[in-house]
Amino acid sequence: MNALLLVAHGSRRQQSNEEVRELAKMLHVRCGDRFPVIHASFLELADPLIPDGLQKCIAAGATKVTVLPYFLNTGRHVAEDIPGIVEDFRNTTSVEINIVPHLGASEMMLDLLASVAAQ
Amino acid sequence: MNALLLVAHGSRRQQSNEEVRELAKMLHVRCGDRFPVIHASFLELADPLIPDGLQKCIAAGATKVTVLPYFLNTGRHVAEDIPGIVEDFRNTTSVEINIVPHLGASEMMLDLLASVAAQ
Repeated sequence: MNALLLVAHGSRRQQSNEEVRELAKMLHVRCGDRFPVIHASFLELADPLIPDGLQKCIAAGATKVTVLPYFLNTGRHVAEDIPGIVEDFRNTTSVEINIVPHLGASEMMLDLLASVAAQ
Repeated sequence: MNALLLVAHGSRRQQSNEEVRELAKMLHVRCGDRFPVIHASFLELADPLIPDGLQKCIAAGATKVTVLPYFLNTGRHVAEDIPGIVEDFRNTTSVEINIVPHLGASEMMLDLLASVAAQ
């Protein structure tokens, strides 16, 4: 069973974290057939942290987890921190975990920006 | 003439700022008919800052500037800082300046996430 783990930075502002959790819920309505389990997680400052988010997916029966970094820019968090945390977690489980490119790297970003600009 | 000003947070990491500038260039290739002038600008830490970005648009002949906050979360920057800076600038010009909802507020965000997750 495929699970999707949305990874955001995490904020001291609880409303921002709640927005990410809500986004994960809306994404589940949208992609629940492909990903029966979708959770939000955070690099820091909010719960669940990434390892706890991965554990939640596995506890829900996931045999494969796709990690999606909800970040706009290529930076240390995307290039080093998230892969490092995931790599550490891989050493504790037989579940397949893969990281897809961060949001900002998508070619569809231009479509999204064009759409917002046209509002 | 319509101009589009992409507003990102700005980073101490120059590569991140350069990504935003490149994005503005790619967006111009995409939306140049609708927005003959498209510039990137930054809330802090990188040049041009928002007022300088607005000034660049006007110097290029813009009679209307659309400000697009390149932010994922609703936070102080989106809710207060950017509107405040734009409001201050409005008092110095007769050019029409409007702010569209930040990137993360777009309903198309779910499409983008679904697309990235499916990679």
